[in-house]
Amino acid sequence: MSAPDPNRLSLNTATTRKQWSLAEDIAGCARHGIKGIAPWRDQLQVMGVEAAAQAIRGNGLTVTGLCRGGMFPATDAAGRRGAIDENRRALEEAYRLQAQCLILVAGGLPAGSKDIAGARTQIREGIAAILPLARQAGIPLAIEPLHPMYAADRACINTLSQALDLCDVLDPRGEGGLGVAVDVYHVWWDPELERQIARAGKARLLAFHVCDWLVPTRDLLSDRGMMGDGVIDIPRIRAFLERAGYAGFHEVEIFSELDWWRRDADEVLETCKERHRRFC
Amino acid sequence: MSAPDPNRLSLNTATTRKQWSLAEDIAGCARHGIKGIAPWRDQLQVMGVEAAAQAIRGNGLTVTGLCRGGMFPATDAAGRRGAIDENRRALEEAYRLQAQCLILVAGGLPAGSKDIAGARTQIREGIAAILPLARQAGIPLAIEPLHPMYAADRACINTLSQALDLCDVLDPRGEGGLGVAVDVYHVWWDPELERQIARAGKARLLAFHVCDWLVPTRDLLSDRGMMGDGVIDIPRIRAFLERAGYAGFHEVEIFSELDWWRRDADEVLETCKERHRRFC
Repeated sequence: MSAPDPNRLSLNTATTRKQWSLAEDIAGCARHGIKGIAPWRDQLQVMGVEAAAQAIRGNGLTVTGLCRGGMFPATDAAGRRGAIDENRRALEEAYRLQAQCLILVAGGLPAGSKDIAGARTQIREGIAAILPLARQAGIPLAIEPLHPMYAADRACINTLSQALDLCDVLDPRGEGGLGVAVDVYHVWWDPELERQIARAGKARLLAFHVCDWLVPTRDLLSDRGMMGDGVIDIPRIRAFLERAGYAGFHEVEIFSELDWWRRDADEVLETCKERHRRFC
Repeated sequence: MSAPDPNRLSLNTATTRKQWSLAEDIAGCARHGIKGIAPWRDQLQVMGVEAAAQAIRGNGLTVTGLCRGGMFPATDAAGRRGAIDENRRALEEAYRLQAQCLILVAGGLPAGSKDIAGARTQIREGIAAILPLARQAGIPLAIEPLHPMYAADRACINTLSQALDLCDVLDPRGEGGLGVAVDVYHVWWDPELERQIARAGKARLLAFHVCDWLVPTRDLLSDRGMMGDGVIDIPRIRAFLERAGYAGFHEVEIFSELDWWRRDADEVLETCKERHRRFC
């Protein structure tokens, strides 16, 4: 496996969210020669969409994804309609940023519910409702299967197989506008990983996120590791994607309350670059 | 879904491991009218296998499983041979207890390894090595797929589909002696759950473990919930098993550093009985 192209590195701004604003993330990427960026919507609201779009364009950055849409299940019809409206606003923002995709974190069980099959139906209906607008805007929807430990409260789309089944149902003729985001943290354990990445193929592989799985993992939400510090064989997974035709960015996304969020953000970006070279 | 038969309740002694010895667990089950018990090997060593076997028989309890064999992957051949020898000893103990199965927790990545495919090969080879003795002893091996959050350090057999594929490879003609343990904590999220339980069928459904998934889950290892306190629809999963022909016990296994391990063990057993009736 040859070393990854440094020009394929992208910064998901969750990685430095405790240290920097989006404006600082953009400036930081430019300063460190990082060519891609994936902002979060809350930071985007603070900066303003137009100001962000200008700063990103002005620095020649590619928006490798907007985080995030999704979160479809709700206890009642009004809640579900509200979620769909929110996703339309997210698509509008993604369009103004010329993002390569809108990341969909599907959503978990509505409060008080044990009906995971029902939640999955609501997710399918939610994605179906926004797919026409996504196609019209030219912003593909990237369903991100989340690790099964988030099934209850974040996303009950939990494997690539399941996400691709959903793509097949919603886009049976492969018209596009719908695919998956492969985050090594969520899928590294999956015995079907190689097969499902091949199944997705170039057309449905919309994003590739990297970080590492630490042993021990001290917190379910925010103890992700820097590439090289854990047990994930990232080059092996990158090879699966490249064999399937993927030629996009490698987006670093690290939630790390106990470590990387406490460090100087310039040090974090330098480390991302070095670890990308050595461990991705 | 009709209420579960109270005579099908079993206590996995992990549930009271901080309060009681195995001798106390056995007496507690007898006192509370719980008909099944599943001991752990470390507690069994302390009590002595013969004394435990006598006390269990004397109280008319069924041993619904011995915890645990498995843990096959190791950094070198000597380590792998040692694991296989340890599993032979576990089978000998299971035989002396007349356990319904030996639970196999497969094992994770060897120290320093990122080779999950290699670890899975070692697991297959380890189970193949002990299967003849298991058949001879009449103690079936129950592969327990563990939640994917344990893939690195406990077990990289993580779905029922994967465990059943392994059964198909090692027992292609269905001669028996090999199957799966279905623990709701590990598999509740799996979109293939119903299909894979049906695929397993009566012959390969060797054990059914219950507890609950808490939201939020504060610790990856020891924050399991009492049935009814979380989001798992246990009756739905029990129905899947019963439709496939399963008529065995419902074994309560709760690791709970922050709650149930701190309570009076008699209260824990009473609660298990009540929650079994209402939420299983």
